[in-house]
Amino acid sequence: MNMPEIIEKKVQGQKLTKEEISYFIRGYVAGTIPDYQASALLMAIVFQGMDAEETAILTETMMYSGDVVDLSSVNGIVVDKHSTGGVGDKTSLVVLPMVAACGAKVAKLSGRGLGHTGGTVDKLESIPGFNMQIDNDDFIKIINKVGLSIVSQSDNLVPADKKLYALRDVTSTVNAIPLIASSIMSKKLATGSQGICLDVKYGSGAFCETTEKAVRLSKAMIDIGKQMGRDVRAVITNMDEPLGNAVGNILEVQEAIATLKGEGPQDLWDLSLEAGETLLLQSKLFVSKKKANEALREVIRNGKALDKLAEFVAAQGGDARYIYYPDRFEKAQYVVRIYANKAGYIQHINAEGIGEVARKLGAGRLKKEDPIDYTAGIILNKKVADYIKKGELLATMYTNDDKAITECEKELLEQYQIGPDKVDKLPLIYRVMK
Amino acid sequence: MNMPEIIEKKVQGQKLTKEEISYFIRGYVAGTIPDYQASALLMAIVFQGMDAEETAILTETMMYSGDVVDLSSVNGIVVDKHSTGGVGDKTSLVVLPMVAACGAKVAKLSGRGLGHTGGTVDKLESIPGFNMQIDNDDFIKIINKVGLSIVSQSDNLVPADKKLYALRDVTSTVNAIPLIASSIMSKKLATGSQGICLDVKYGSGAFCETTEKAVRLSKAMIDIGKQMGRDVRAVITNMDEPLGNAVGNILEVQEAIATLKGEGPQDLWDLSLEAGETLLLQSKLFVSKKKANEALREVIRNGKALDKLAEFVAAQGGDARYIYYPDRFEKAQYVVRIYANKAGYIQHINAEGIGEVARKLGAGRLKKEDPIDYTAGIILNKKVADYIKKGELLATMYTNDDKAITECEKELLEQYQIGPDKVDKLPLIYRVMK
Repeated sequence: MNMPEIIEKKVQGQKLTKEEISYFIRGYVAGTIPDYQASALLMAIVFQGMDAEETAILTETMMYSGDVVDLSSVNGIVVDKHSTGGVGDKTSLVVLPMVAACGAKVAKLSGRGLGHTGGTVDKLESIPGFNMQIDNDDFIKIINKVGLSIVSQSDNLVPADKKLYALRDVTSTVNAIPLIASSIMSKKLATGSQGICLDVKYGSGAFCETTEKAVRLSKAMIDIGKQMGRDVRAVITNMDEPLGNAVGNILEVQEAIATLKGEGPQDLWDLSLEAGETLLLQSKLFVSKKKANEALREVIRNGKALDKLAEFVAAQGGDARYIYYPDRFEKAQYVVRIYANKAGYIQHINAEGIGEVARKLGAGRLKKEDPIDYTAGIILNKKVADYIKKGELLATMYTNDDKAITECEKELLEQYQIGPDKVDKLPLIYRVMK
Repeated sequence: MNMPEIIEKKVQGQKLTKEEISYFIRGYVAGTIPDYQASALLMAIVFQGMDAEETAILTETMMYSGDVVDLSSVNGIVVDKHSTGGVGDKTSLVVLPMVAACGAKVAKLSGRGLGHTGGTVDKLESIPGFNMQIDNDDFIKIINKVGLSIVSQSDNLVPADKKLYALRDVTSTVNAIPLIASSIMSKKLATGSQGICLDVKYGSGAFCETTEKAVRLSKAMIDIGKQMGRDVRAVITNMDEPLGNAVGNILEVQEAIATLKGEGPQDLWDLSLEAGETLLLQSKLFVSKKKANEALREVIRNGKALDKLAEFVAAQGGDARYIYYPDRFEKAQYVVRIYANKAGYIQHINAEGIGEVARKLGAGRLKKEDPIDYTAGIILNKKVADYIKKGELLATMYTNDDKAITECEKELLEQYQIGPDKVDKLPLIYRVMK
């Protein structure tokens, strides 16, 4: 077995065997297979694809390239939720306490976000005292006791993905369903959960531009789960405008808290309910979506979902008073209100552009070492389909960087299309697949 | 401009600009673009191809990555001939003296062969005293005086091709028409000839397996010539059995000498005439194939073609007595006759397999540093369509390596298919393109 032969097989459109895929991944991680052969094979996969079996083998081999979490000492079925990423996506902070309050066991490993805003790690770390560096024993203990723990992924979680992703990024081989699916799923499966609910985003602010691609990616990830005996389901949702109204770390935590009190924006609430129902079915705690829906609404009404967030934050060293009194959070020095320069209906909000402005205000980072300003971000006071009068409040920017304000003000306005024609609200949930 | 963007354009099937192709080739030769990005782009080209203009730009940029020969001080149109390579192919040694005897000016740079037998360099160096290391001034002088010079290509001839070829070889990106065409043509164009006659081989002993692929490759190379103002023509010829009867360096020189005396095998003679007519038309010395044909036959008849070979050999330091008295050549210590083990018509001779046996007898090399035994090789006493009786002489092996004999005897027999059905002679010339 050698790499030129394996590459040539894929060039010819043939199926690779388990031995060939393992030879590649192990050799590449060990450094005996050079980058230039790996990138040639990845490019051949971009054109020729991989079938469900090959993709599952690739995922499994990648998963076992590093640490794998053992959740066997958790009492009950463990579930996890993952979003493919979007602007203003704080759904995990809402839905995970909700399902834990209903009795589910949730284990989540999370990475630091690159780009517009931080990842779930950064959002949680904006709560004073909150600690993501929990060892495996405490992780299990908190899951058993509270029902929910979210910790930083170890540096040795799927090293094959780290190395492959860095190579794909500089060789234009990012965009292939089997490579995307195996990258996401190798990390999710290494976390050990039996049930995984994927929120697969499509639209201008997501890497799946179309519903068609989101469906194909979802199917590939569900198939990996089937081949490996895990219950994987996907909720395919729109990311043509930011989710909810808040973009930025503390702003998003505050919006999640409001949603857990039943006072959040409609789209975030709808998505949290849909994902929550899926997770409760995967937990086998409820036999119908309707029963799960009722239970989720009940823990909002009786405050148990908010209590669960506070309990979880406290269990990981965070100051739970911030959950009950979100006004305690530190505030940005500069609050800049942006008013509409004409009247009309909001036709479109460029999610990607909004994220980029938030990053420039300090909410995100381009490199792993860059600091994040937890207080920075944007509140969208109007969303697509809303009517706005000239001079009415469109959005509010929060920052500590006074030099960024002028440029961001101009750029923020450019992300909106306002026109005379009435438009419909964007459909949020396209499809649920399992 | 950066490599991931250039790669992505090709992945999307878009056409690359002159600036993008130059950026890639220059950066790759300079070492600022790493192998892994080069191999990803090469693989994208394997799938998406390049059009005639892109291929010409690639070829030109590669050509200017190193030394380019200036032939402007040669009196008259300079022509060159190149074969894509086959077993027993000594056509250059026949056709180039023929056309030079008719008044053509021929300049050829040649590389050392890897594989079955040596290249033209090795065949000529089997003539005692012959010197391929001629400087540029003497190269021009010999062309002006004799009409023909063949020298070793400099180490700095198209360094881009050397580096790219080494990478293609280990990343399964060899097999793409624009990459093959630019590799061959960048070297041919750097030699400076105005007219280039390509002998494009197809069949089991060639890298174009089918006529269809040979036609596509020929068209790509002719198009490169058109874009760059050179007259490129292609003779597409069969390589399903070895060309002529001799395989091995001295054996092939002897067969070339016999052919120049009008006593060579029919297929080698037919091909030499066809290529010779093409070269004479490209030289603009004759206005019709018929006139060129007559002139070529005349220089065989009156001995001027053989004299031209002797004159050329002497001009480059070789002992011309070997040309007139080819029995002077050193002989192999062991001459092993192989007899047919059954009667019948020769159905097929595996050209690639014959070449491999010749290499094992000492006629070729696997690595550049390996020595060659000039005396080693094979004479095919029967060719496809010949009838042979059981026990009649099938082939003769020449070697100085007595340990190789037993294995080679067995392997040589395996290259022949002998059966009761009459078969036609293989068609030699499939098509001439310009």
